[in-house]
Amino acid sequence: MNAEIIAIGSEMLTPWRQDTNSLFVTERLNTLGVSVAFKTIVGDRPKHLVDAIRNAVRRTDVIVVMGGLGPTEDDLTREAAAEALKIEIKRNHDLIAQMYARAAQRRVTMPRNNEKQADVLEGAEILENPKGSAPGQWLDTVYGTHRKLVMLLPGPPSELESMFEAECIPRLQAALPRRFIATRVLKAALIPESQADARIAPIYKQFTDVETTILAHLGDIQINLICGKTAMDMAQARVDALASRIEEELDDFVYSSHGESLEQIVLYYLEMKGATLSVAESCTGGLVAERLTSISGSSRSFYGGAVVYSNELKMEFADVPPSVLERHGAVSKETAEALAEGIRERCDTTLGVGVTGIAGPTGGTEEKPVGLVYISVSDGKTTDVVERRFTGDRSRVRSYAAQTALDMVRRRLM
Amino acid sequence: MNAEIIAIGSEMLTPWRQDTNSLFVTERLNTLGVSVAFKTIVGDRPKHLVDAIRNAVRRTDVIVVMGGLGPTEDDLTREAAAEALKIEIKRNHDLIAQMYARAAQRRVTMPRNNEKQADVLEGAEILENPKGSAPGQWLDTVYGTHRKLVMLLPGPPSELESMFEAECIPRLQAALPRRFIATRVLKAALIPESQADARIAPIYKQFTDVETTILAHLGDIQINLICGKTAMDMAQARVDALASRIEEELDDFVYSSHGESLEQIVLYYLEMKGATLSVAESCTGGLVAERLTSISGSSRSFYGGAVVYSNELKMEFADVPPSVLERHGAVSKETAEALAEGIRERCDTTLGVGVTGIAGPTGGTEEKPVGLVYISVSDGKTTDVVERRFTGDRSRVRSYAAQTALDMVRRRLM
Repeated sequence: MNAEIIAIGSEMLTPWRQDTNSLFVTERLNTLGVSVAFKTIVGDRPKHLVDAIRNAVRRTDVIVVMGGLGPTEDDLTREAAAEALKIEIKRNHDLIAQMYARAAQRRVTMPRNNEKQADVLEGAEILENPKGSAPGQWLDTVYGTHRKLVMLLPGPPSELESMFEAECIPRLQAALPRRFIATRVLKAALIPESQADARIAPIYKQFTDVETTILAHLGDIQINLICGKTAMDMAQARVDALASRIEEELDDFVYSSHGESLEQIVLYYLEMKGATLSVAESCTGGLVAERLTSISGSSRSFYGGAVVYSNELKMEFADVPPSVLERHGAVSKETAEALAEGIRERCDTTLGVGVTGIAGPTGGTEEKPVGLVYISVSDGKTTDVVERRFTGDRSRVRSYAAQTALDMVRRRLM
Repeated sequence: MNAEIIAIGSEMLTPWRQDTNSLFVTERLNTLGVSVAFKTIVGDRPKHLVDAIRNAVRRTDVIVVMGGLGPTEDDLTREAAAEALKIEIKRNHDLIAQMYARAAQRRVTMPRNNEKQADVLEGAEILENPKGSAPGQWLDTVYGTHRKLVMLLPGPPSELESMFEAECIPRLQAALPRRFIATRVLKAALIPESQADARIAPIYKQFTDVETTILAHLGDIQINLICGKTAMDMAQARVDALASRIEEELDDFVYSSHGESLEQIVLYYLEMKGATLSVAESCTGGLVAERLTSISGSSRSFYGGAVVYSNELKMEFADVPPSVLERHGAVSKETAEALAEGIRERCDTTLGVGVTGIAGPTGGTEEKPVGLVYISVSDGKTTDVVERRFTGDRSRVRSYAAQTALDMVRRRLM
């Protein structure tokens, strides 16, 4: 069963904004066994809208139209859907009464043009919108000789998402052949995508009933498994079997077997071991701390640390000896080690992390080029340190350095 | 003149990845006076590909097709374009010779299926791809009675972008009516979008020849102005005139008149005044430092600071007196002030920033709810502090807090 998602709004045809609602809708449709065949983004010109909806109805079975349901002149989705589907529109007087009642309750005057929001396609069911004023519409209809499920939904993400969950999913489940979809997400750190794929392709190709997708981003690999069967335990057994085989093959590169982020896993390990962590960051400038503190509850194991951009602060906050900075320079194995050990002592944590390097684009020399980063983890007895030469721009170097620091902590705790 | 952008690739129909190339292409097309009317995302099924290209050629004049030019079985863009446009494909033997020569030079065997990449639409010009193996194609053709410009381009962003710049822009400039496009980007901080729009709409509505787009994201407002004329100075004069009127109206909410980020502006002001900065962050956990250090050269004015998640570290790194923490609590006006003043002294900077609050979702009380944040800026003589009650999830509270901290520094330096 194929779907098309249509996102309506001229702002999504500018260089500054893009549709993101479709990611949510795709995820939900996939769990019902519906794949997305097309996504169309279109502005608010009536001719274009009608064209987009007509195409979708012609070539797919499930059509999700998002946006253009408000009360303004530019909100033309209802009219366009009616024209594309050759269905009449009727103003629903119960809906209008509700709108006036709600406005009266809030002691505001309802603007006259809001009445437009009560225009309903003949045969459509009204979908309630508890988070906004524009109701949605659900149409189970026949076009040519084929059954088509058409949803008109509001554009704002919170309205769209709650309406889709509460109103569309149950109707889709009732309308579609019963199918159970199991998913698994594995994550691995700092293995190149091509290498990961070369190692696991021979495995996942044996599982022809599981769809495997590999995504790589800044040293983070995500492996998505999805399988649909007529019974849930069958589908789950297949994705679990494949997940086990992949985990075995990629071994300790895999840090998460159910989609958790690397920072979540690090915090989880810290809590499990009753350990605590602090960081002293030079070139990552707070990125490691920011990732850890983005997780709620991180304060239980992550105490904080210092952003030590200048040499003075490396001494002030992490007690890096001046002699180390003089002899080896701020970007050196020795400084990284001193940062890790110094911040650990100052923060009184089980583990300390030190990061120092040259993020670029300026500041590199022949001896110490842009991308050179030293990362150290210390527990007061053993101090690990690695030298890395990352390629790419400032943001990429910083991201890889932060990813490496977090992964080193994970490996230390494993 | 209308364009359609078609992004090809099944991975962009999953919940995990989306087309981003189209943002770049849209920006470049806009500067040539071409607006984008549709974007279509489609997988690699031949029938769907042909349908997408046929639709685009029917309804728009400039068609940019991205992806599906590689050598594998799934790379079907050439065949689909040929079928949609009813044009023959011919294998180009010069291209094949070049491919073999390049492989020989690198002492590798050229896989036989690479020859597919030499299939060229009849009448198309070949677009060189210095960054990859798949050449692009440019077709200036007639469909029905209308002239159509069709580009087949590779999907990887670096290949697409360099090919578009070097090969497509000059051809588009030659083919399109000569038109000059001027743009301006203004940015404002911490004014609600609806309020900003209510204030400037009466102004930009007078400039019917300038297209104005307002985007809002986490306390950051971006106002994009774009104007096309037959001469560059005419277009520039119009966007500049509108920009001045908007800046006048929004006054000191506007922090940037040419698109610079807030952190860039803060660093620029610091350098201009010969001032330096340090930060002590509790609930933002490194986000302020991370934003500042994302800018190359930031080390000249931003020295660093501390992530002081625990009370101990608030005392250790920012000398917050224990009595302040006891009497007022970690989330208080007084602690924020002590953080700002303490970190300033410890880092020996002109200005110090302190941020403390409850990012949530847990940790809130009736008296101190989730979203309550205190932010302070001190220069040793005057200490400003604000109390804010941000709504939304952890990430939103942290982003607004960091944005407010940076904006307070900007206003202090103005």
